Amino acid sequence: MNHVIPAEVITPAVLIDVDILDRNIDRMASNMLNRGLQLRPHVKTHKTLEIARKQLAAGAVGITVATIGEAEVFAADGVNDIFIAYPLWVEAPHAERLRALAAKCRLAVGVDSAESATAMGRRLGADAGSVEVLIEVDSGHHRSGVLPEEVVDVARAASSAGLNVAGVFTFPGHSYKPGMPTGAASNENEALGRAAAALTSAGFEVRTISGGSTPTALISGETMASELRPGVYVFGDAQQLELERCTWDDVALTVAATVVSRHEAAGGNVRRVVVDAGSKILGSDRPDWATGFARLPEYPEARVTALSEHHATVVWPDSSELPALGTRLRVIPNHVCLAMNLVDEVTVVRDGSVVDTWSVAARGRNN
Amino acid sequence: MNHVIPAEVITPAVLIDVDILDRNIDRMASNMLNRGLQLRPHVKTHKTLEIARKQLAAGAVGITVATIGEAEVFAADGVNDIFIAYPLWVEAPHAERLRALAAKCRLAVGVDSAESATAMGRRLGADAGSVEVLIEVDSGHHRSGVLPEEVVDVARAASSAGLNVAGVFTFPGHSYKPGMPTGAASNENEALGRAAAALTSAGFEVRTISGGSTPTALISGETMASELRPGVYVFGDAQQLELERCTWDDVALTVAATVVSRHEAAGGNVRRVVVDAGSKILGSDRPDWATGFARLPEYPEARVTALSEHHATVVWPDSSELPALGTRLRVIPNHVCLAMNLVDEVTVVRDGSVVDTWSVAARGRNN
Repeated sequence: MNHVIPAEVITPAVLIDVDILDRNIDRMASNMLNRGLQLRPHVKTHKTLEIARKQLAAGAVGITVATIGEAEVFAADGVNDIFIAYPLWVEAPHAERLRALAAKCRLAVGVDSAESATAMGRRLGADAGSVEVLIEVDSGHHRSGVLPEEVVDVARAASSAGLNVAGVFTFPGHSYKPGMPTGAASNENEALGRAAAALTSAGFEVRTISGGSTPTALISGETMASELRPGVYVFGDAQQLELERCTWDDVALTVAATVVSRHEAAGGNVRRVVVDAGSKILGSDRPDWATGFARLPEYPEARVTALSEHHATVVWPDSSELPALGTRLRVIPNHVCLAMNLVDEVTVVRDGSVVDTWSVAARGRNN
Repeated sequence: MNHVIPAEVITPAVLIDVDILDRNIDRMASNMLNRGLQLRPHVKTHKTLEIARKQLAAGAVGITVATIGEAEVFAADGVNDIFIAYPLWVEAPHAERLRALAAKCRLAVGVDSAESATAMGRRLGADAGSVEVLIEVDSGHHRSGVLPEEVVDVARAASSAGLNVAGVFTFPGHSYKPGMPTGAASNENEALGRAAAALTSAGFEVRTISGGSTPTALISGETMASELRPGVYVFGDAQQLELERCTWDDVALTVAATVVSRHEAAGGNVRRVVVDAGSKILGSDRPDWATGFARLPEYPEARVTALSEHHATVVWPDSSELPALGTRLRVIPNHVCLAMNLVDEVTVVRDGSVVDTWSVAARGRNN
């Protein structure tokens, strides 16, 4: 990573190192291709048309989104194969929007109960068959999704409601913890295998078996999945660093920040600086295993111990001189999907120079 | 609080109960007036022109903002007295923007070191005298700010640099913890008193002594402050509820959400629902003393135990029936300033009906 912050950047600002981004996109695409897997990246991470275009050009079969609103933004840009990986509850306004999407692209949506499937089919009416559904399986994250043996009931309800049952999906979110990715990948694999087998036994043709996630996607070995949906891999972030799922050199997104307050140790206070990137640009996700609220690539020993809306408090290592006021530093957010969702545009850099500005086109599309 | 979610609202969405908002604004304004204090509300909480106008109409002397960008949005709407309560590091582009602001309104900014004051004065050049500065004092939060006895050095540097030294300010951020507000208010008072006395002794005219914060502002008693800068009081949030700084009936901002996934206890899993409001609309601040990531006003015993970008996992109390799929619920975010900064507009309701839509005009203005 080139740590230079171009002079014209006013901090705080999100910077994307485009060469690192391209390398991350290519690495995941090659890995999937070599393993005979389809790649359907989750674009909620970046919400940016330019990046989705790069992913599709590198071989992605389509994209994954979290909301109907995100699907609309990418479909309007010509993406023709979209999976809304979310257990939608469909009322009349959602049905109308799903119909419009299905007229533009191949559309799949998630469902995790017979009741939701029935409601979705009823609302879509004669158009139900134009929407594929994937049944969500709980592979250990215990958020949404049914147990593998329960998928058949949901599939039967979906089918009775006129929906086009295409297969199963899961998100092994319990992979987001040190020591967990390998076990979570194995849970995911087992759950997908059992769910797909149950559907097949019940007479369904299982065309899609869809798995997560950046922490698990590059764990090689046999997988039951036909496609994977990693998102964060395009940028990396401090969580992935601390999970050892990426290296410092893989981090494509940083927040440029300035030292605005500086405190040498005195009177019992810790030796610290405050930089002008707070929770309103970094996001405030902080799992209990994380070492702080963000990381500094130039100072791996520094720790962000507190985050306010516009202040990050950085406890400085004794081994290194406290930076001067006005020093510009790069900061790696804990969870990059939240950082991207806080800004309307990002500055694209290469070798320390600004080469472009991209709009975060689907920012804030929560519904 | 009227818990009805108007039928036309698509979830997730931010709702503002305007009657509660108005009551909160009036209560704080009356309290300040009765105590002879000036109110300068922090508008980073709402970033919304309509709400700032209400605060000014109720008697606020001006507003507080966190960034130059926020100041620009409100100055363009005609606000004529603005304090940027942040220790700014001023380079040439900031100086140009500060000059433009000072030409439109009475402008004060924060500073917390002699070096920052000198840099600010140098960059502002002949216009330095048009900007008031308040020296930031650390009253116990240990973020930015100097110790009370250190303000004189900063004030002398500011004065030598041509800046107009107006007084001191502090933010007692350590009030955000159960049992802390009263002690923090007392720390704030003592620190402001010592800092103001030091400045006066050094020959400075102290015109402004500015304190925080929603948890401390309504703690009555003598205060050294001439003005207070609470922000969150307009809405309340789950943090203020759990700090007992507001009641359920004072909460003016909620996120409308829908139950999308439902899990009766089985196989060791907890009895839970998932609603469609996640960290991309609630924000993910979660202090270690908070009981969860959000609260549900209709179900005070329910707890939001996990938050993903578009899912809140709600562990349901045994005493209450698990809500049906499709049920619409209101959710109170932990930290309302982050929730407002995630949406481009909010739905204004009264007695369960939509009465307006407001743009979050200064959303994302991080610099």
